[in-house]
Amino acid sequence: MPLLKSWVSSANDAAHPFPLNNLPYGVFSTADSDPRCGVAIGDMILDCQAAEEAGLLQLADYPLLEMPFWNEMMEEGPAVWAALRARLTALLAEGSAEQAKLEPLLTAQAEAELHMPMAVAEYTDFYAGMQHAKNMGAILRGSPDLPANWLHIPIGYNGRASSVVVSGTPIHRPNGQTKAPDAEMPSFGPSKRLDIELEMGAIVGTGSEFGQPITVDEADAMIFGYVLLNDWSARDIQGWEYQPLGPFQGKAFGTSISPWIVTAAALESFRAPTPAREKELLPYLEGSKDGLYDIELEVLMQPEGAATATAISKTNYNRMYFSAAEQLCHHAIGGCEMNTGDLLGSGTISGAERSEYGSLMELSWAGREPFTLETGESRGFIEDGDTLTLRGNARGDGFTIGFGDCTGKILPAKVWPAAK
Amino acid sequence: MPLLKSWVSSANDAAHPFPLNNLPYGVFSTADSDPRCGVAIGDMILDCQAAEEAGLLQLADYPLLEMPFWNEMMEEGPAVWAALRARLTALLAEGSAEQAKLEPLLTAQAEAELHMPMAVAEYTDFYAGMQHAKNMGAILRGSPDLPANWLHIPIGYNGRASSVVVSGTPIHRPNGQTKAPDAEMPSFGPSKRLDIELEMGAIVGTGSEFGQPITVDEADAMIFGYVLLNDWSARDIQGWEYQPLGPFQGKAFGTSISPWIVTAAALESFRAPTPAREKELLPYLEGSKDGLYDIELEVLMQPEGAATATAISKTNYNRMYFSAAEQLCHHAIGGCEMNTGDLLGSGTISGAERSEYGSLMELSWAGREPFTLETGESRGFIEDGDTLTLRGNARGDGFTIGFGDCTGKILPAKVWPAAK
Repeated sequence: MPLLKSWVSSANDAAHPFPLNNLPYGVFSTADSDPRCGVAIGDMILDCQAAEEAGLLQLADYPLLEMPFWNEMMEEGPAVWAALRARLTALLAEGSAEQAKLEPLLTAQAEAELHMPMAVAEYTDFYAGMQHAKNMGAILRGSPDLPANWLHIPIGYNGRASSVVVSGTPIHRPNGQTKAPDAEMPSFGPSKRLDIELEMGAIVGTGSEFGQPITVDEADAMIFGYVLLNDWSARDIQGWEYQPLGPFQGKAFGTSISPWIVTAAALESFRAPTPAREKELLPYLEGSKDGLYDIELEVLMQPEGAATATAISKTNYNRMYFSAAEQLCHHAIGGCEMNTGDLLGSGTISGAERSEYGSLMELSWAGREPFTLETGESRGFIEDGDTLTLRGNARGDGFTIGFGDCTGKILPAKVWPAAK
Repeated sequence: MPLLKSWVSSANDAAHPFPLNNLPYGVFSTADSDPRCGVAIGDMILDCQAAEEAGLLQLADYPLLEMPFWNEMMEEGPAVWAALRARLTALLAEGSAEQAKLEPLLTAQAEAELHMPMAVAEYTDFYAGMQHAKNMGAILRGSPDLPANWLHIPIGYNGRASSVVVSGTPIHRPNGQTKAPDAEMPSFGPSKRLDIELEMGAIVGTGSEFGQPITVDEADAMIFGYVLLNDWSARDIQGWEYQPLGPFQGKAFGTSISPWIVTAAALESFRAPTPAREKELLPYLEGSKDGLYDIELEVLMQPEGAATATAISKTNYNRMYFSAAEQLCHHAIGGCEMNTGDLLGSGTISGAERSEYGSLMELSWAGREPFTLETGESRGFIEDGDTLTLRGNARGDGFTIGFGDCTGKILPAKVWPAAK
């Protein structure tokens, strides 16, 4: 598929993240308007709530966009998703007869504030990157051997939906309980090993029924779209708490997502296969489609006051061992009801080389081998004032499907207890 | 406090679970009405939505009860909780001037169907029973030694809110991935080691702010009430999946709660201390109030077609090592936002003796020592058609605070994939 031309001229640049081929969904506000649903096109946002109210979207189940979340539309299912995408494509295409009606509904992105694109129902985080799992094993347990179940199960744990925030939201360094290896007793205070995890987030559009397992192909059809996801992690809190029931407060202080939901439809031509299976999967985990996507990913780090951000990692979503559809199928296989707005983190995406690792824990090998930023400063973990940014792009023939930055700045820990 | 007398005469029996001293909140429907908020009094339910509409409840922030969930009222906070409780106590007391207006708003419990009393925001399950933790260590890891962190941290993991169902909802035996110890490869199919966990559930009434840690006393004041909670568990699925990120599909197929929220106010006179600390807690986990409650608990098991249920375990909520307030404080200590409707499972409540253990895993010592029911049948784990019931009562001087049964019947596993 070539670049689709839009009458919004900024969308016609081969390197622009939001061409007509993309049409990602978000929620925006301006100085004059409350948060509302919109779609990014070039440097602009089309006010979809207003377009729906004006009868331009031709959605049968009107209104679907009166709330500042995309959940109601997602709940409608693939036929409505396809109809809306086709309609928006026609409306915004070069030569559209509706251009004059739509122009007043455009807002410059530079003038908009972006909000959570959906209400997160529940959040689950997976562990599907093999290189990451091997690195964490080597660092934490002294051996890169994978856990015995790892090649068979898309390992995941339930995270905390209330801590999922949109890009740009500052994150306070968490307080928590840690124990130094040689200490007799644990202590309480701000985390000293604050980290990121570079992930993709898959967003469930249509749900499953309580008690009813699903197939991988059904799961694939339930996924509405994807965001970039930074699973902020406090390694020292996590290390002390995680046995035997898994990560808890080491992960619960913040999970950032990029502001635009890039639809599975926009990514369709970038599908990529999961790698050859080192052990045969059980049949319930087999699907008919390539479940990964060729999305170039990058992590940038910028200390407080620094003029530039340093790219500290580059990798690709196609490095994962399990796909989001496989993860979603496994998530529901015991009968767990999946719902519109459920968010599934892929797990940390690390490539084979050090420069492709998706966390500081791996990039600095647990802080033992700090890396150097362009400013000359070195880092093992995150320091207060640092801003971390994830970027993602799928590169087509003459066009780019971008996600919009997923960024967050770390602020000092809050004082406990709070002043009265 | 003695029994408070009501003009609803069935409420005046010393053994009745729903005297005027209790006033638990639920959601009910009848053949003639959709689900709506109600309060149990004796054998009856007062339609609180109708009472509010009639102006009888004198709630300032009217309407709070137009939805079939108690969340809006819970969100209002302790002052409104106290005002509503005082008003209902006056309305339903012997000699109330409003009796004639209220009588038409009563429905017999026998004619009502009960629904989820609140929308569960997120569900967290803890592991705060010491005897249970020791038993599980002995069974699974060959040693009753507690994990190194156990005496310091109220260990918990995030569960799945979408699988929390009200008492009476049947649960299908889950399918899942398991691996026999001597097998080379895992296999897929219905769980063979299906279990219960006897727990209390604490319901968060008012939330906390994203990024802001709280104290134990603040947490105590945030808790609106309690339910009985059965954390159904598939031990074979859990055993294969839980390393290194904790329980997932072994827990996600169903969690049952009793239908009435017994308020913290109703339980106030039953407060009980946590046991002497084997190791000093960090100061952030210290509160000024006794955080447990003296609630007698019982588990009953009834095979399909059996005339009677057998009591298989008797214990008490005051056996726990950590309180719900300590758990909630720890949950928010890193800045995790807690919200109205969050549900916190206590962890399995096991007393010191075999007859007081709160799971079949412990009662049958992993199936190796089956127990016998009154029918003469023996059980290691749950069989299809078995009904499991939790019961709870706090016994006062001349009155009882009951919870209403938390019951669930196990149905055969669903066929995968579903027939088209």
